[in-house]
Amino acid sequence: MTARTIRKVLVANRGEIAVRVIRTCAELGIDTVAVYSVPDADSAAVRLADQAVRIGPGPAKRSYSYIPAIIEAARATGADAIHPGYGFLSEDPDFAEVCAAEGLLFVGTPAAVMAELGDKSTARALMAAAGLPLLPGSREPLETAEEAQALADGIGYPVIIKAVAGGGGRGMRVVRDPADFAGAWQQTRANATAVFGDGRLYVERYLDSARHIEVQILADSHGTVVHLGARDCSLQRRHQKLVEESPAPGLPDELVARIGAAAVRGAQAVGYVGAGTFEFLLDPEGRFYFMEVNCRLQVEHPVTEMVTGIDLVAEQLKIASGLPLTLSAESATARGVAIECRINAEDPTREFAPAPGTLTECVLPGGPFVRIDTHVGPGYAIPPHYDSLLAKIIVWAPDRPAAIARMRRALAETRISGKGIATTAEFLHDILDHPRFRAATHDTALIGTATSSGGTRMAS
Amino acid sequence: MTARTIRKVLVANRGEIAVRVIRTCAELGIDTVAVYSVPDADSAAVRLADQAVRIGPGPAKRSYSYIPAIIEAARATGADAIHPGYGFLSEDPDFAEVCAAEGLLFVGTPAAVMAELGDKSTARALMAAAGLPLLPGSREPLETAEEAQALADGIGYPVIIKAVAGGGGRGMRVVRDPADFAGAWQQTRANATAVFGDGRLYVERYLDSARHIEVQILADSHGTVVHLGARDCSLQRRHQKLVEESPAPGLPDELVARIGAAAVRGAQAVGYVGAGTFEFLLDPEGRFYFMEVNCRLQVEHPVTEMVTGIDLVAEQLKIASGLPLTLSAESATARGVAIECRINAEDPTREFAPAPGTLTECVLPGGPFVRIDTHVGPGYAIPPHYDSLLAKIIVWAPDRPAAIARMRRALAETRISGKGIATTAEFLHDILDHPRFRAATHDTALIGTATSSGGTRMAS
Repeated sequence: MTARTIRKVLVANRGEIAVRVIRTCAELGIDTVAVYSVPDADSAAVRLADQAVRIGPGPAKRSYSYIPAIIEAARATGADAIHPGYGFLSEDPDFAEVCAAEGLLFVGTPAAVMAELGDKSTARALMAAAGLPLLPGSREPLETAEEAQALADGIGYPVIIKAVAGGGGRGMRVVRDPADFAGAWQQTRANATAVFGDGRLYVERYLDSARHIEVQILADSHGTVVHLGARDCSLQRRHQKLVEESPAPGLPDELVARIGAAAVRGAQAVGYVGAGTFEFLLDPEGRFYFMEVNCRLQVEHPVTEMVTGIDLVAEQLKIASGLPLTLSAESATARGVAIECRINAEDPTREFAPAPGTLTECVLPGGPFVRIDTHVGPGYAIPPHYDSLLAKIIVWAPDRPAAIARMRRALAETRISGKGIATTAEFLHDILDHPRFRAATHDTALIGTATSSGGTRMAS
Repeated sequence: MTARTIRKVLVANRGEIAVRVIRTCAELGIDTVAVYSVPDADSAAVRLADQAVRIGPGPAKRSYSYIPAIIEAARATGADAIHPGYGFLSEDPDFAEVCAAEGLLFVGTPAAVMAELGDKSTARALMAAAGLPLLPGSREPLETAEEAQALADGIGYPVIIKAVAGGGGRGMRVVRDPADFAGAWQQTRANATAVFGDGRLYVERYLDSARHIEVQILADSHGTVVHLGARDCSLQRRHQKLVEESPAPGLPDELVARIGAAAVRGAQAVGYVGAGTFEFLLDPEGRFYFMEVNCRLQVEHPVTEMVTGIDLVAEQLKIASGLPLTLSAESATARGVAIECRINAEDPTREFAPAPGTLTECVLPGGPFVRIDTHVGPGYAIPPHYDSLLAKIIVWAPDRPAAIARMRRALAETRISGKGIATTAEFLHDILDHPRFRAATHDTALIGTATSSGGTRMAS
């Protein structure tokens, strides 16, 4: 494979990640094309890109996820590559194939690999074959509720029912009581059919007390795979990450090395190319289990950037253009601790219900070792069609206590308001002070599910 | 000296540096008191500090430089320490003495050391005695214009006339022609008398082609002095720094080690305590000459922070409370390259005349490896009484070309506007692309003095 120069990148996304990608392209001297839906006409991505093309109305399926509109915009602007960001079309093998057919470089994972890993059942089988440890569960999608329940009974409860086409915390349901299994199965199937157009499900053992540990990998088209250490994303609410950090606190170097090696082995087994994330669960005894591969940049990629000094988008572009990885040993060595908080337009006092509106005030923090990735500012009107992420605050410090103090300082500075608007900033400020987070003994259950009183229960 | 816990810091400053200091205090769990003049009532420092005290009207000599008002605010709020920032009272030995007499920790250099080093003539003599190389010039303040001219004639032209009480680029004048000497002498004396209340002057050889190299030092009260590498601040206009970077590009490690060792030796010779900067000129042959010591935090301190990972304000507070330095070898090792640009409310097309007003638009850059230190935002009205610094943009990258590209990207994102407002952002964006800056062969003369046509001449 010979290197192919990228001259103009179309960013098939919106929000902070579109801005993020445009920034690296600008630094590399690569022209950019923003695409935007009608409600995003005044967006930061439109302002920062060299060109902008309106591709449709608000709903994603008519704009950001509508392949013909994206391809047409690329053709009209003469883009030679497409960066999909995360979400939308970023893990759609069909989109990657259409790009290839149109002569456009897809800045992502090859379609065939993405198809294999996107099918969570196939991914499990491939990784088991590569020697990665898996939680007990079904190797194939299960046909009937009875068959599934028999398997669950054999595994032992709690179990988790997952959509084969799911991922990123979507399309899953935990069952603790055998009596609830059949109902949960039907609900998950109906939901998966509606959301993913694919009702196939599988079952695996559910760990009540586990940490979410993930490994960032980079793989070039010449067979080189490296990992950039681990992130801990255990601070979640209903499988949605709220706080992420790198390195994973308290993990022995030897364990990180083994998890990292497992991710590299898994990537090599499937001929992975691009940036990707191998997600694992870590149980209290230090055993880790493969969960899934995300074939894209993660929302939380900046924490890896902050401790390694590596620009992951720049690496994606290099890989897509066919260049070999040239990371130095120094740059791949983590320095200090980085933490990311997601500032969502959600109301923690109302079960994190979306709380959109127009920002009359938007003061984001700054100063030493604070990075802000955002697309919003004063006057920004949050469109109702998309996720609620307003901004990511990322901090770096030499050690974890200093990083927590810095993040709490940054969150305390944050002022986002407007009629009807609520954010997660204050909630996050408080939870970073939780003794279990400070001690890094928290797991994915720290933030409990909403109680019947409408508040959010925090596990003690 | 026993360690003394600092519980509440009064920040005797304004603008971005007041915000900067408050942020670190917040991270360390130290309460803060902002003091403010009438026009700064709505400032970011007032908003971010735990308490705020109005100390007087706009002119600094009636507020930020008025010692009784500062002391009274400290007394009224129960502050136990005062951080002076830079400028104003930061290098005033009298202020440090008053603080001590009032039982307040002065977060800075001991008064006696500051007095010695603040007298530029004494500082030269002390550093010469410590073995630091000096440019040819007078060892003592000169009495008469005739005496001074005789010395200048002996040194050879160009020479620079400097105020003993000057520093930081103020109170100096270059003379190239012996016929101009007497007039320049009188003007500099009149200016120094008016500005510093001290008309004493000295003369030294002026280097037309020199780089401004400075060394950041930290010295604790137990006799330990470390240096944190060199900064290059050669991109200046009329002795005012516009762009700073660390490490100093193109300098052999061996030379940096020698300059750093000279700074440490100089600090030890005078019993220096606190954060400080030793400024040197470096000639094209690689010879360096001591210029002056700045007994305070510099405007450009963030570039050192970005490459070392050290919070210099936190170190200042530790030193002031009597703790020993505990910097690790790793943290004192520079990683990558950091560049700072000063965004001033000045009009480069009108000889950098101040261009104040109210910011109707204020969009500052963000994203990977970009740090913003500022006190301004939309709606900010620039008071006429103070310097024109609106914001500092600091970027980090693994290497210098990437850092330049990142800074140019960041500057291109910057949008500050309002009736009558102009900034240096676009000028800096352009000059960072200058072949001599890119090649790091620029010196302090790159940005020429204003021409008679009113524009600014850029040396080729």
